[in-house]
Amino acid sequence: MTAASVPAAALDEALAQIGPLDAEAMAAARARLDALTKPPGSLGRLEDLAIWLAGVSGRARAAVDRPAIIVAAADHGVTAQGVSAYPADVTAQMVANFVAGGAAINALARSVGASVTVVDVGVASSVAASVGVASGASLVDARVRGGTADMTLGPAMSRAEALAAIEAGMTVAARAIRDGADMIGLGEMGIGNTTAASAITAVLTGAAADEVTGRGTGIDEAARRRKVAVIERAIAVNQPDPADPIGVLAAVGGLEIAALVGVIAATASARVPVVLDGFITGAAALVATRLQPAIAPRLLAAHRSVEPGHAVILDALALRPVLELDLRLGEGTGAALAIGLLDAACRVRDEMATFESAGVSREADERS
Amino acid sequence: MTAASVPAAALDEALAQIGPLDAEAMAAARARLDALTKPPGSLGRLEDLAIWLAGVSGRARAAVDRPAIIVAAADHGVTAQGVSAYPADVTAQMVANFVAGGAAINALARSVGASVTVVDVGVASSVAASVGVASGASLVDARVRGGTADMTLGPAMSRAEALAAIEAGMTVAARAIRDGADMIGLGEMGIGNTTAASAITAVLTGAAADEVTGRGTGIDEAARRRKVAVIERAIAVNQPDPADPIGVLAAVGGLEIAALVGVIAATASARVPVVLDGFITGAAALVATRLQPAIAPRLLAAHRSVEPGHAVILDALALRPVLELDLRLGEGTGAALAIGLLDAACRVRDEMATFESAGVSREADERS
Repeated sequence: MTAASVPAAALDEALAQIGPLDAEAMAAARARLDALTKPPGSLGRLEDLAIWLAGVSGRARAAVDRPAIIVAAADHGVTAQGVSAYPADVTAQMVANFVAGGAAINALARSVGASVTVVDVGVASSVAASVGVASGASLVDARVRGGTADMTLGPAMSRAEALAAIEAGMTVAARAIRDGADMIGLGEMGIGNTTAASAITAVLTGAAADEVTGRGTGIDEAARRRKVAVIERAIAVNQPDPADPIGVLAAVGGLEIAALVGVIAATASARVPVVLDGFITGAAALVATRLQPAIAPRLLAAHRSVEPGHAVILDALALRPVLELDLRLGEGTGAALAIGLLDAACRVRDEMATFESAGVSREADERS
Repeated sequence: MTAASVPAAALDEALAQIGPLDAEAMAAARARLDALTKPPGSLGRLEDLAIWLAGVSGRARAAVDRPAIIVAAADHGVTAQGVSAYPADVTAQMVANFVAGGAAINALARSVGASVTVVDVGVASSVAASVGVASGASLVDARVRGGTADMTLGPAMSRAEALAAIEAGMTVAARAIRDGADMIGLGEMGIGNTTAASAITAVLTGAAADEVTGRGTGIDEAARRRKVAVIERAIAVNQPDPADPIGVLAAVGGLEIAALVGVIAATASARVPVVLDGFITGAAALVATRLQPAIAPRLLAAHRSVEPGHAVILDALALRPVLELDLRLGEGTGAALAIGLLDAACRVRDEMATFESAGVSREADERS
């Protein structure tokens, strides 16, 4: 199967390049922070962010001057089962909204100076043709197929299609990094994709479908129970093997989730920081870390979504989010907000005076 | 006592002007947010921030274009009891560092476009003379006295001095608002001021000194226990009456904490949003809300400090912080970080497309 073997090789190569965080760069960043005019560690997790940036990049003073947000978009055949509060058309409409600059991710990306790239890996109705020239986001047409099949009737996609979507994500991330991006934030759009993310999370963590299934964009409790039943049926029909993450993606995943696995793999292998968003990007992170556990410490969890499955993922990846704002929108909105904190961490590290330069007395050691 | 009666009258007038949040403006803000291309409420607490801004200001689209951070600074006689990890000289050194632009608050204020004003209400060694022209912050000389007296030997200051410090804060806030500030963030500097804040919190909430006393800038557990004993002694010596918040301030408070009470009162009476920082500004908020309970909903808790007394204050004021970053520096650093979130909330409210303008389908009501 030639179509699948090429991307699989690129993915394997990227995964093999990912090693542990750079301890030397982290120690240098810590030493710099401790020389600044503040009690050591008194900026808490903001200091941790500066140290994390050093560990990921291998540079004590890694900058976040050109953050890029990559939003993967695709449709889900499982919407035929009535799992979402919104009609499937909204995926394409929102992609057009991203490109026009009118979505939440556009407003939040502007507030932190981040670019937005939308990659269509499987929106049911092709978007590219209907979108004119606009400034909100650049649109990459990398359609693998026009949305997944209904996972309750069989696999959402073939293994080759899952790998093609992963490669599409790798290509977009590699291009962004080549163009100067020094941080990649993840976002997604796909009506029905909390169903796919819940199914992936249930299979890969062993949690019950009920435990990892929430109300998505706004269904009520009766609809949520139907969504749980849909996920249980999809798992029963496909019998995905938890030891085969790509097989799980193909069985119950989404094309945009697969693309995000590729974005994570390519970004981590380039030693560029990855900022996750909420539940959907978390499901992609879960798949990516099952392929290469060294990816986990290279991820920043931006926020904790209200989707119950997200907490399960964060626990599984040992990630503690920096924001708790009860977001449940996706698109990369939480990732954009976290970029503001990363910028703040870099400014503290780079702009503060040292005890020596400012003539400020250090701790009185005999007292403390 | 003429010196005290004038500021007391100004304070009483400001407090009398503070009413409930504007429900009509909040409803209009909510309606605007619900018309935007996202599921209703899906941006969680970011939407709450936009609604809170409307309630405080009385305008559905209140802007945060010119945020100002007011840092009150003063020294504490109780440092003679060895309660801090740093020598008292550091207060003046850090004020000079603020003015020169080398402190954490300078870096973080720049990251959100906020101005910084430092008001010296009682630094032991006058700072104004030693500071040249610099761009980090403007310095206001409003010295009431050269630091408080040691609270373990008697009152930290007189009631008249507490009121004078409150008025100094009111004057600085009123001037900032007259000059265009549309949001005031609070900060403070004063070696020894966690001791004062713990004492105020213990008296006003009835909590045990041990429960509200932490390690400040970095003392060890033995030193923390000595700090608890110092606070217990100060309370036993002064017997402050919890029903008299100004009396509590005078007995065990700090001049900078009194000034912050004034900043809060003047800002709230001008219907301008107040963003608290950590434990010290929280103690000022506790005093201010005991003077006028309608102040509490006009306060935004930026973050939860690692100081244990801060959680007690947040509970007492029914405030839930927007950031949990384990900060313990003060200076207004948490307030500055929260300004970034307020800016993001305003951008979402103002820059997003509506369902109508973007041609995006709304929820399919029959499903949800």
